[in-house]
Amino acid sequence: MTKKRLLSGIKSTGRTHIGNYFGAMKQWVDLVNDYDSFIMVADYHSLNFVQNAGEMRDLTWNMVIDYLAVGLDPKKVVIFKQSDVSAHTELCWIFDTLITMPFLMRAHAFKDAEAKDKEISVGTFNYPVLMAADILLYGPDVVPVGQDQKQHVEYARDIAEKFNHIFGETFKLPKEMIVENVAVVPGIDGRKMSKSYNNYIPLFAGDDEIEKLCMAIVTDSSGDVPTNVYAIHKLFRSEEELKAIYDEHKGKYKILKEKLIEDVKAFIKPLRDKRRLIAEDTDYIRQVIKEGGERAKEIANKKLVEVKEKIGVN
Amino acid sequence: MTKKRLLSGIKSTGRTHIGNYFGAMKQWVDLVNDYDSFIMVADYHSLNFVQNAGEMRDLTWNMVIDYLAVGLDPKKVVIFKQSDVSAHTELCWIFDTLITMPFLMRAHAFKDAEAKDKEISVGTFNYPVLMAADILLYGPDVVPVGQDQKQHVEYARDIAEKFNHIFGETFKLPKEMIVENVAVVPGIDGRKMSKSYNNYIPLFAGDDEIEKLCMAIVTDSSGDVPTNVYAIHKLFRSEEELKAIYDEHKGKYKILKEKLIEDVKAFIKPLRDKRRLIAEDTDYIRQVIKEGGERAKEIANKKLVEVKEKIGVN
Repeated sequence: MTKKRLLSGIKSTGRTHIGNYFGAMKQWVDLVNDYDSFIMVADYHSLNFVQNAGEMRDLTWNMVIDYLAVGLDPKKVVIFKQSDVSAHTELCWIFDTLITMPFLMRAHAFKDAEAKDKEISVGTFNYPVLMAADILLYGPDVVPVGQDQKQHVEYARDIAEKFNHIFGETFKLPKEMIVENVAVVPGIDGRKMSKSYNNYIPLFAGDDEIEKLCMAIVTDSSGDVPTNVYAIHKLFRSEEELKAIYDEHKGKYKILKEKLIEDVKAFIKPLRDKRRLIAEDTDYIRQVIKEGGERAKEIANKKLVEVKEKIGVN
Repeated sequence: MTKKRLLSGIKSTGRTHIGNYFGAMKQWVDLVNDYDSFIMVADYHSLNFVQNAGEMRDLTWNMVIDYLAVGLDPKKVVIFKQSDVSAHTELCWIFDTLITMPFLMRAHAFKDAEAKDKEISVGTFNYPVLMAADILLYGPDVVPVGQDQKQHVEYARDIAEKFNHIFGETFKLPKEMIVENVAVVPGIDGRKMSKSYNNYIPLFAGDDEIEKLCMAIVTDSSGDVPTNVYAIHKLFRSEEELKAIYDEHKGKYKILKEKLIEDVKAFIKPLRDKRRLIAEDTDYIRQVIKEGGERAKEIANKKLVEVKEKIGVN
């Protein structure tokens, strides 16, 4: 029996943080055993935010190392750069011609972004369409995403249905896969951990950094349990173990933060060590990117040929 | 000395008409002698309007034959299909990430289209950005366009300047070339001749069709000279010659239309004959498209490699 297929990815706009790990990467590492898997570095999405060649290269390079360091095995999963596969942007244009302005303007992400800044880029507006192309080129059965990305998979499904309706059955309708209990990882300010809020703990942070960030976790001034500390701590220990700790040090926020720091350090150290080793082998990293791109291109181009046949431009 | 470069193209959304010929193609035939020329069949733009594979294929195929029939010589000019060069849509996305929604919403074509129909496609909105990519990939010195397309070349220039400003000198700023005296060819209803108004005389029309269409030219009911008849007639004869005819048959609209019909028939017949011969040689047409695509790809991909280097995704 052929395996079901999985596709996911992360925008390379900053350092990988524990929110990315517990919200997505950790699941990937388990899932790639059961699925034919594609994990993308979404650098063409990043271009909406990163407009500096050196920074862009560093971010992509480091994200690939991060993927490898958390345990994604290139023998089991195709790790690739979005910009290595031109079919993504080509299919994005094809979809652009089929969908309407009002449909795309209803997207949450666009409405949120525009509420903050009228001068958002056309790429930010067009983001869900490129993401639909990212997904549909590979015909995945499941797309693991965070709760906040659910609508993007719905858009991909709507766009696939519209294309299929006009040009005949071409795209498999993808389904989002949301791991419920880890859907939202809180940041040190209590909001969702996110690069854009700058409230994150980097996944490969140094000990000093871990101390500084954990000490800076915003706590409510009343109550026995500092909510945000506990919420982050929960990622590293079972609720039973935590109960003992938080009972013993009831109301002692500083001590509880120190306990968290210990656990975060213990968790991150082996990852950081593994990452350092991988980062030294630049030939290997280059090879992973190259081979991943070739494999992704093979799949994506095959689908694009079919699409171009269906729309009559070949 | 290297020749200056020229790029132009037409959307393949219907039959080529005398407005296309006198407004664009006729100039191309002269210009390709002096310029290193690229003429594109803009099929990815057509996709906003044509959503049927058979129709799309016919339109593209026929447009290439039309190009050849009017005298574009593939030895002098690269005739190619936009969809054969994936760099166009890829660069379109890259530009999308740099420009803002308000900038693109100010485009005349978008405002006009949206005024008529709120449900316009995202591709129609994004049209000037793909056109900027179409142009800038080839670094043309001049872009022959109709007056109504002037703003698109301005957009291409603005986008090129913005890219150059952020990432360093990459794109040559293109200039529009508008042949003033033939800028607007009127249709049989007096408005600009256009596929979308359905007021056109096909360039390769049969005699019956020519008669029917010319007889249907809308005339004002007063005055000695039927304005619209004269305006179309002017394309086929010098004003001196016309003066004699229109003086002799002052106020006799039917006779003047018959005179026009004679001239249109005499003009179209050799073109139609030439076209029929070319259309028979399907191998040759296929070869023109294939070789044009390869040559265009070579130039466009070279520029795209430079762009990807500049933005840091390579």
